[in-house]
Amino acid sequence: MKYAELTRFGIPWEVCRMVEGPALGSPGPGEVNIKVEAGPINPAELLLIEGKYASRPPLPARLGIEGVGTITAVGEGVNELAMGDRVMSLGRTNWAEEIQVSSGAVVKVPKDADVQQLSMLKVNPATAMFMLERYVNLKPGDWVIQNAANSAVGRYIIQLAKTKGVKTLNVVRRTELVGELRKIGADVVLLDGDDLAKRVRSEVGDANIPLAIDAVAGEGTLRLGGALSEGGTVVNYGLLSGKPCQLTPELVVFQGITLTGFWLAKLLGTMKPDELQKLYAELASQITNGNLYTPVESAYRLDQLSDALKHAYQTERNGKVLLMPNG
Amino acid sequence: MKYAELTRFGIPWEVCRMVEGPALGSPGPGEVNIKVEAGPINPAELLLIEGKYASRPPLPARLGIEGVGTITAVGEGVNELAMGDRVMSLGRTNWAEEIQVSSGAVVKVPKDADVQQLSMLKVNPATAMFMLERYVNLKPGDWVIQNAANSAVGRYIIQLAKTKGVKTLNVVRRTELVGELRKIGADVVLLDGDDLAKRVRSEVGDANIPLAIDAVAGEGTLRLGGALSEGGTVVNYGLLSGKPCQLTPELVVFQGITLTGFWLAKLLGTMKPDELQKLYAELASQITNGNLYTPVESAYRLDQLSDALKHAYQTERNGKVLLMPNG
Repeated sequence: MKYAELTRFGIPWEVCRMVEGPALGSPGPGEVNIKVEAGPINPAELLLIEGKYASRPPLPARLGIEGVGTITAVGEGVNELAMGDRVMSLGRTNWAEEIQVSSGAVVKVPKDADVQQLSMLKVNPATAMFMLERYVNLKPGDWVIQNAANSAVGRYIIQLAKTKGVKTLNVVRRTELVGELRKIGADVVLLDGDDLAKRVRSEVGDANIPLAIDAVAGEGTLRLGGALSEGGTVVNYGLLSGKPCQLTPELVVFQGITLTGFWLAKLLGTMKPDELQKLYAELASQITNGNLYTPVESAYRLDQLSDALKHAYQTERNGKVLLMPNG
Repeated sequence: MKYAELTRFGIPWEVCRMVEGPALGSPGPGEVNIKVEAGPINPAELLLIEGKYASRPPLPARLGIEGVGTITAVGEGVNELAMGDRVMSLGRTNWAEEIQVSSGAVVKVPKDADVQQLSMLKVNPATAMFMLERYVNLKPGDWVIQNAANSAVGRYIIQLAKTKGVKTLNVVRRTELVGELRKIGADVVLLDGDDLAKRVRSEVGDANIPLAIDAVAGEGTLRLGGALSEGGTVVNYGLLSGKPCQLTPELVVFQGITLTGFWLAKLLGTMKPDELQKLYAELASQITNGNLYTPVESAYRLDQLSDALKHAYQTERNGKVLLMPNG
């Protein structure tokens, strides 16, 4: 049974390796065995591998923050799941041919949705949804501004905002993304730059922009904050620039702009099992009906782990990089 | 009747002048005349004079965000105030020998408190109080960290926190301030520096530090934010560094640190007259009983306006600069 392992913190393709372990035994009471079909390589997992994440697991560590698979065996006392069910494991061991996990840390997902799309259900759709819902009471006709709009989270934000009647201002760094994002429902797409706030206002006039979603930090935060309406909130969830978030005292004091951060892992840790089931049932249905979709650039087998990690590390991709442990 | 006037925006002592106007007539219905005894020169007023404030008044403009004086005449229908009452005017025309204002924009203050201390009642004590009360539910034993701790607001924060059983970590840039601030009740005084968070924790261990009060911005914000407990709030109210507030995504996302701003003028504008009366009656009583005190470095006559403004512009003072229009 092949699985990915982190041996030390550092450059991902130098410190992760594929290990050939013994086959899984029968699941114990309350456990299930899952044959993993697909799981993405997320920026947060690359940070974890580099040792830059909030916490460092003891080494060697299994990997794979998310993944989807099929139940191959069910332990004693597991009544709500059966052989052949498609499930998402909430654990962090998904980069493996097979995993054995507690049935309580598993969410049943639809069989009729695309397995690659489903494999990205846990992190980015939930991140997008919570950032749209937790900080500002958005009303139809309100605008949200975001940077890194072509990221997976960025695309989910465009798609989820649309279902709420909320409009999106999408900031990107490459012209060729403008048409692509407009095609998936982006209302306005703008190139980043110092005069962003001015160009935003020439697009939307004095419309209400109460929420900015920032994956860039540094001056990215400042430019989004400058485009917000009075009293608006910047939610940061990423550090693509590698620099501290910036907001001028003028924005913070006179415009009443607030900066806050979103961390999915922490929030999920506070949720009860039935809340998690409900959350992901709702998001999975949006994947099934096609409302939520993000492109996949490439899928790799587990024995191509190094290539997959190198590919995922490139910032100017046009889609996610997946692992498909069983080919 | 002498008063100060702003002729254009720029360097304070070049753009402000003393004007000799006609004597005030009798107050109209609902108005009072006030002989101004004292009023401070605040950083916010210097910003306004330089044209760097949130709004710019039409020019020429009267000046004086705060001041205290004695009622010399009472108009028809004014029942709650009488000749000889000591009052604070909430208007922005206090740098004058006499002013004529609506009785609704006046707060009666005690005659038995120090007039110089009372003249600084409107802005800084209220700022300190609101920043301590509006953002975090502080409990006795909690700590608050602030920079520019030797400013008037900083000293009021030390004094008000003490009345609540809240402890203060005070960050300064000059060693000679350590003893002085400890004398007025500062629990810990530290020199600013990159390892601030570490030194804070060696002082207070894992005590709860839920609130940081930031007058500096730039890296000042970052250093305070780094010293906060998880989920803490940085309230910015000043820009002494002239740079944007900074917070790393690690602090914002993983530590759940929030940045927000406080603007007194805006808040006062939303308060009802009886709320204002209650607020300032409470703060004035704290001045009378000696709980609130900030040193005065110098007091100037109105015909020394330029010297007074130059003095107030110096950042390394040991107290406020006041105008005493009637000597």
